[in-house]
Amino acid sequence: MNLSHIEHLGIAVRNLQEAIPYYENVLGLKCYNIEEVADQKVRTAFFKLGDTKIELLEPTSEESTIAKFIENRGEGVHHIAFAVRGIEQALAEAEEKGVRLIDKTPRAGAEGMTIAFLHPKSTQGVLTEFCEKR
Amino acid sequence: MNLSHIEHLGIAVRNLQEAIPYYENVLGLKCYNIEEVADQKVRTAFFKLGDTKIELLEPTSEESTIAKFIENRGEGVHHIAFAVRGIEQALAEAEEKGVRLIDKTPRAGAEGMTIAFLHPKSTQGVLTEFCEKR
Repeated sequence: MNLSHIEHLGIAVRNLQEAIPYYENVLGLKCYNIEEVADQKVRTAFFKLGDTKIELLEPTSEESTIAKFIENRGEGVHHIAFAVRGIEQALAEAEEKGVRLIDKTPRAGAEGMTIAFLHPKSTQGVLTEFCEKR
Repeated sequence: MNLSHIEHLGIAVRNLQEAIPYYENVLGLKCYNIEEVADQKVRTAFFKLGDTKIELLEPTSEESTIAKFIENRGEGVHHIAFAVRGIEQALAEAEEKGVRLIDKTPRAGAEGMTIAFLHPKSTQGVLTEFCEKR
């Protein structure tokens, strides 16, 4: 498997307008993009720090998996996304090694990325995303 | 505030010997250090990916905060650590801007770092560490 860096951290928040000032005014990062991902029922805000983006995820519906995550566990880190070269091969390799996949086939994510999730039952509780630039 | 990159992600696991094979054999990372931090009652295993380390945290006592975290929330991401230049100034700045600090004064962490934690009540549920090379 060919991972190059941590592409982003996904962080579930109740409200972007309350969370963004902490990242901007306290941590000194700059929100460079706000994007709605309709099929995941979230609104996302992106920051960049070194190699890695921070992606805040605000649910736009009570049916959103992010709304359910917050209801069950509160706000906090939702997933880790690794940048991978050859996402289909990486998924096949993970499955062959016994990892349960949420997405057997990569799909479109935010920011022009192709993404797929591994199941946290196979990754010591860490919801894990592979992503590759389309 | 002067953050340069995400220094590491702290991930709470029940058992290093069960978790390390996922990071090595599936993700293809290399565990380059295992270190016990006696005063935090944890054993840590480190991997490097791009700018960022992954620090697995296994509790060595039921009294460890990591043991309590796992009991309450299960295994998963425990904290995000930002590399900061001027940790004392960064803490003072965060406090001045209304962030509650766990550590008002930096203390020694693993791998020769000086560290301090911000309280997750002030950071949308993300336990946040500042760290600087000693």
